[in-house]
Amino acid sequence: MIKQALLGILCGAAVLTVGILIGHYGIEKSSDSSPSWVKDVAKDVDEDLIQQFMSEVDNIEIQENLRELTKVPHMATTAGDEVTVQFMLKRWQDPENGLDAAWREEYKVYLSFPDPDNPNKVTVANTVLHTVREKEKTYTPDQDDPAVVQPYAAYSPAGNPKGKLVYANQGKPSDYDHLNQTTDLRGTIAIVRYGGAGRGAKAINAAPYGVIGVLVYTDPLDINDGLMSDVNETYPHSWYLPPSGVERGSFNSDFGDLLTPYLAAKEETYRIPTENITGIPPIPIQPIGFEDAYILICELGGGAAPNDWQGGFNCTYNYGGPGFKPTSAFNNSDVKMDIFNHETTTNSSNVMGVIRGSVEPDRYVIYGNHRDSWVHGAIDPSSGTSVMLEITRVLGRMVKQGEESRGERRSASFCFELDGSSSCPSLAGKWRPRRSIIFGSWGAEEFGLIGSAEYTEDYFTKLSERTVAYINVDIAVFANATLRVSGMPSMQNVIFQATKQVSAPGLSSTSVYNNWIRAGSDYAAFVHYLGITSMDMSYTYDRSKTNARIYPAYHTAYDTFDYASKFIDPGFTSHQAVARTAGNILIRLADSLVLPLNYADYAESLERYLEVAVNLYEEQLHARNISMEPLKLAVASFRRAADHLNQVIQSSDLPNQSPLMVRKINDQLMLLDRAFLNPLAFPDKYAFRHVIWASSSAGRPTFPGLADAFANADWEKAHYHVSVLSQAIDGAANILTDVI
Amino acid sequence: MIKQALLGILCGAAVLTVGILIGHYGIEKSSDSSPSWVKDVAKDVDEDLIQQFMSEVDNIEIQENLRELTKVPHMATTAGDEVTVQFMLKRWQDPENGLDAAWREEYKVYLSFPDPDNPNKVTVANTVLHTVREKEKTYTPDQDDPAVVQPYAAYSPAGNPKGKLVYANQGKPSDYDHLNQTTDLRGTIAIVRYGGAGRGAKAINAAPYGVIGVLVYTDPLDINDGLMSDVNETYPHSWYLPPSGVERGSFNSDFGDLLTPYLAAKEETYRIPTENITGIPPIPIQPIGFEDAYILICELGGGAAPNDWQGGFNCTYNYGGPGFKPTSAFNNSDVKMDIFNHETTTNSSNVMGVIRGSVEPDRYVIYGNHRDSWVHGAIDPSSGTSVMLEITRVLGRMVKQGEESRGERRSASFCFELDGSSSCPSLAGKWRPRRSIIFGSWGAEEFGLIGSAEYTEDYFTKLSERTVAYINVDIAVFANATLRVSGMPSMQNVIFQATKQVSAPGLSSTSVYNNWIRAGSDYAAFVHYLGITSMDMSYTYDRSKTNARIYPAYHTAYDTFDYASKFIDPGFTSHQAVARTAGNILIRLADSLVLPLNYADYAESLERYLEVAVNLYEEQLHARNISMEPLKLAVASFRRAADHLNQVIQSSDLPNQSPLMVRKINDQLMLLDRAFLNPLAFPDKYAFRHVIWASSSAGRPTFPGLADAFANADWEKAHYHVSVLSQAIDGAANILTDVI
Repeated sequence: MIKQALLGILCGAAVLTVGILIGHYGIEKSSDSSPSWVKDVAKDVDEDLIQQFMSEVDNIEIQENLRELTKVPHMATTAGDEVTVQFMLKRWQDPENGLDAAWREEYKVYLSFPDPDNPNKVTVANTVLHTVREKEKTYTPDQDDPAVVQPYAAYSPAGNPKGKLVYANQGKPSDYDHLNQTTDLRGTIAIVRYGGAGRGAKAINAAPYGVIGVLVYTDPLDINDGLMSDVNETYPHSWYLPPSGVERGSFNSDFGDLLTPYLAAKEETYRIPTENITGIPPIPIQPIGFEDAYILICELGGGAAPNDWQGGFNCTYNYGGPGFKPTSAFNNSDVKMDIFNHETTTNSSNVMGVIRGSVEPDRYVIYGNHRDSWVHGAIDPSSGTSVMLEITRVLGRMVKQGEESRGERRSASFCFELDGSSSCPSLAGKWRPRRSIIFGSWGAEEFGLIGSAEYTEDYFTKLSERTVAYINVDIAVFANATLRVSGMPSMQNVIFQATKQVSAPGLSSTSVYNNWIRAGSDYAAFVHYLGITSMDMSYTYDRSKTNARIYPAYHTAYDTFDYASKFIDPGFTSHQAVARTAGNILIRLADSLVLPLNYADYAESLERYLEVAVNLYEEQLHARNISMEPLKLAVASFRRAADHLNQVIQSSDLPNQSPLMVRKINDQLMLLDRAFLNPLAFPDKYAFRHVIWASSSAGRPTFPGLADAFANADWEKAHYHVSVLSQAIDGAANILTDVI
Repeated sequence: MIKQALLGILCGAAVLTVGILIGHYGIEKSSDSSPSWVKDVAKDVDEDLIQQFMSEVDNIEIQENLRELTKVPHMATTAGDEVTVQFMLKRWQDPENGLDAAWREEYKVYLSFPDPDNPNKVTVANTVLHTVREKEKTYTPDQDDPAVVQPYAAYSPAGNPKGKLVYANQGKPSDYDHLNQTTDLRGTIAIVRYGGAGRGAKAINAAPYGVIGVLVYTDPLDINDGLMSDVNETYPHSWYLPPSGVERGSFNSDFGDLLTPYLAAKEETYRIPTENITGIPPIPIQPIGFEDAYILICELGGGAAPNDWQGGFNCTYNYGGPGFKPTSAFNNSDVKMDIFNHETTTNSSNVMGVIRGSVEPDRYVIYGNHRDSWVHGAIDPSSGTSVMLEITRVLGRMVKQGEESRGERRSASFCFELDGSSSCPSLAGKWRPRRSIIFGSWGAEEFGLIGSAEYTEDYFTKLSERTVAYINVDIAVFANATLRVSGMPSMQNVIFQATKQVSAPGLSSTSVYNNWIRAGSDYAAFVHYLGITSMDMSYTYDRSKTNARIYPAYHTAYDTFDYASKFIDPGFTSHQAVARTAGNILIRLADSLVLPLNYADYAESLERYLEVAVNLYEEQLHARNISMEPLKLAVASFRRAADHLNQVIQSSDLPNQSPLMVRKINDQLMLLDRAFLNPLAFPDKYAFRHVIWASSSAGRPTFPGLADAFANADWEKAHYHVSVLSQAIDGAANILTDVI
């Protein structure tokens, strides 16, 4: 009985234990368990998903995107541009693989066009001895499209200057100055080659010397590695520029709509009087092909120009008498320019698309490229647009698939419209990014980065408060040799991380540049005006194989699908590698728990700048009682703060911390660059506010404002910039440190 | 056996059930239960704690604070100022009821002082007929302190002008213009009364007419309800100004250090050349008492001035011949000013203190007041400083008590120094605010809001990114009649909520003003330069009982503890009511889950501004093809967005939402005002960037930039401001809406 009782107790105890175990582990505790969002807020980037994304990126899809985009010329605001707007909208609104939402935004912007009924003309002599070709020679049917715009210089004034021709090298101030020593330039027409100075600057620099018109051409030495013949050397036989090829372009110096500085160019927006526009040519200027430039330059009289003014023609480049040689058939002839360009304000569209973030919808990663081209723009910009469309196709599908399987497709857009902040169901299906992703297909970039600049003006505060980073892929593939990424130093790490995962030719020699001196593409407004961490990416040349200053068909009628698919990236694998790399970085920026930005790399850049500045300037500044100590202290304090923050990130168990503590760190990382903005530091440089990356004419790898002030021996301004920089870098360090 | 077996099974089942129940309910599930921070992030403001705070605010403590602070004069950067610095530090570093940390921050600023060895003199005639009193008459021993600074006009240049006297009313442009119609003002000295124009403006307006010096005094009509006699009427018999009382003041027009615009005034900071300073008197100016002004004005010759130029003296105010009446003993005499002011750059301190936030340490509520006075400054600013010290005493104690009971006092400061973001234990004891609280005791406010302005320049980006609101309590009690709160309209709600909980005389007639036209105290830099939601609070007059333009002892040697305790707030209950109200608001801003800011009230203000603008300007703007439609659309869109956000907040179960969703809303509320900043909108107004609240000379209750442009018939600028405003208000609406 005792045994039985003991057994009973034992059994009972065992049963009780089993019961306790079942009760404790077997039954979900509904009342005590964590809210559903606890897991969501701690979620980090999913490496499998990145792999899946990369495997789905398809080179043939990119090729077909390009074929579609380049069917017709799509210069900004033309009928062809509208075709691309509709194409982007159709793709981004596609129910199978589109985005959550897509729409167009219009700005009424100031553009400059030639007159189709009165084409610009350049002729030699009063009784015409030579007429410069009005349109490029055609090799394929698409180049015959009547929508191919005549080569012209946007924002060149109309006019009919006539005068003796001179050769002024690249049209730099020093070139005109040199020429002026021996030649009276008053009343002359100057011919200059591309390179060395901005397009518009070639005319702006000329006017003070009395030059009344400028011709500009691309020298075969600068673009074609010297080759000139379309019989067997240039396109359609190679990637080189045919003799009649002409680089079009915008000849203004600032970015954004010229009539609405700092204001979004809407219908009723205040516009400055056109006579107040600065930075555009004061005299007519017209680009021509080297076929015609050859005829003009080789007939020039006067003395021989210096060695470094000589180009690829098989003749001596003379200064010009002014005018032609006495032995030339053109002797005593003038060159006459008849320029009929006109300006107009007209609507240009950005196409916008979004994938709404699930956990932090009010944090944006922006990915953009312009849509407008000069002619067919297969490389510039449609290579980038094709890549963007492939990225959105794959990401869009991942988002839509999730919804589909859960029958939530309708609710996503429904929530999006209504404000998903509070009442929306979780939209997480197969995938939804932690942060929101915004795609921008900018309009009218070719006229001066207009679409992206207007966008940043329109949404200044919102973008400034919420944007994590901006990724720009304009010309995705200049050449298929190697990947080049330019970016803020804080992005170096995530760029390396992504490139290591993409296998493609040339990727081993990836080079990352930390420099944003030139306002070359749509990242300009994001970097300089908004202070948003940005990068720009492309496949590019093997510099041991070509000296071309850019791909030869740039801004000409030859930048077509045929050219791109035959000579730039046959098979589209370089396009694919760019799409994989850019998408990889995009997903990391959108999904990482802690933003993959590293300010120790930024500190390194500042230290390098400081070292150069100290070496070049300290002695002379010290002699004028200007101390560089505050700048040294600021850089040191930035370094300490950056290292400290890295250490905090590494030593913390962030997935288990309050999401507000993680957000605190992410805000430090996101907003850091805003501290470098000073809207008053560069009163003469439109929209340049970032005191580290602003443009500089001094050409020194150091702080731009200080370098320029020093170059001009303006000691008040040099001292001012030391203070501006110290305060900005101290301010940035304050963002990275935790002390109030 | 079957029965036994059944019983056994039954028992076993029962035991199992008990076991399951114990297992499920009896044992804490450590692995599955929510992380500890889940409750913290959802915590809202604790009403009991607010009640406890208010009950602990003590009027006698405030009185004793004031007694201590006013022992010696504490003009900026003097020895007396240093005494108050040490006092603040001692209080804020107190182990029993101090803050987490307190420290001083110094700026080297440009100040102006009289020469103690060469007092400024004003005399009548070449052989001296009358000498204006150099120092005020004393009634109590503290007024005999040698540190009482002679009355002077800070930033008046030194000089020795001598000329015939004229009376120029308030020194407005229209006053000088009127006087100039009948009187040749070249070489004259003008006497003017305070009011109607800024201090410095009275000299700036005079100079173009050839006036060479200015005397300024306070007319008994404007300050004393007409009373003049210190035998039985004025202080020490009442709050009215004795005849020898003189209002000191800063005579500059801009705020912040004059030599370092937009830069924090550190040791090595770039300083503009002093000749480039704008907005200070170009000719000597000196304030005098009405005792002396009476003697001068009643002897003036020339015609009688208009009715509205007449003041409280029992004589006719004449224009001046120029000079005195033929019948006066002063006939033919000049007035001579000998002004020996000098400028100097010297270190001024802000004293800073913080209570670190527990849940959102990177969100700041800032509470500030200046510390420097002109003389003893019992009211201005020490009434406010006494209130601030009482608030920090009670809050500090609540924080320290919590730590004490948990033995955590050391760890709090330890964590604070090291960066508490990741490795610190929870600091929540009895109380720790959700957000960080920063207290600022600003230096050199009297010279032009210098300490607070330098602080905002020094920490611009950090403050801009993280500051929820700024509370300013400068003069806490002007008079003990009624509470007056000025603030951004978004704060109206929380102000009402707090005032309803404070019982005190006059509180029923609380009036809230939404207007920040005047840069009257340290909130200026926070509002205008940083766009931070701000408020300013004081007890003030019953306007049915006095017409005094300010409390009569303002900026004089009579603003002492004796004066404050006898005539301004006997018993210090009005001080107590201010401390309770301000502290109540402070706790709500620091502790509320959702920030207590309401933008529907802001929309109402914008709608009122718009209505005025449309009524006053639309017809004439329309006639010049300037449409106000964009502005109307922007205000309507702001209204919709504000109402929508309110609805989202009210209809959401925010305590149970992801804290990142709550933060999203709080960021919208916090950052909204930043959208109204435009650093280029007012190029001629130093640091005014807020396009809604900027100062305006047009005197219309509407958008300042538009009003001024319209008043000057500058149609280009009017159109520009319509666009600036539309873009800013649209941008603000974008912050409140959820669409990307």
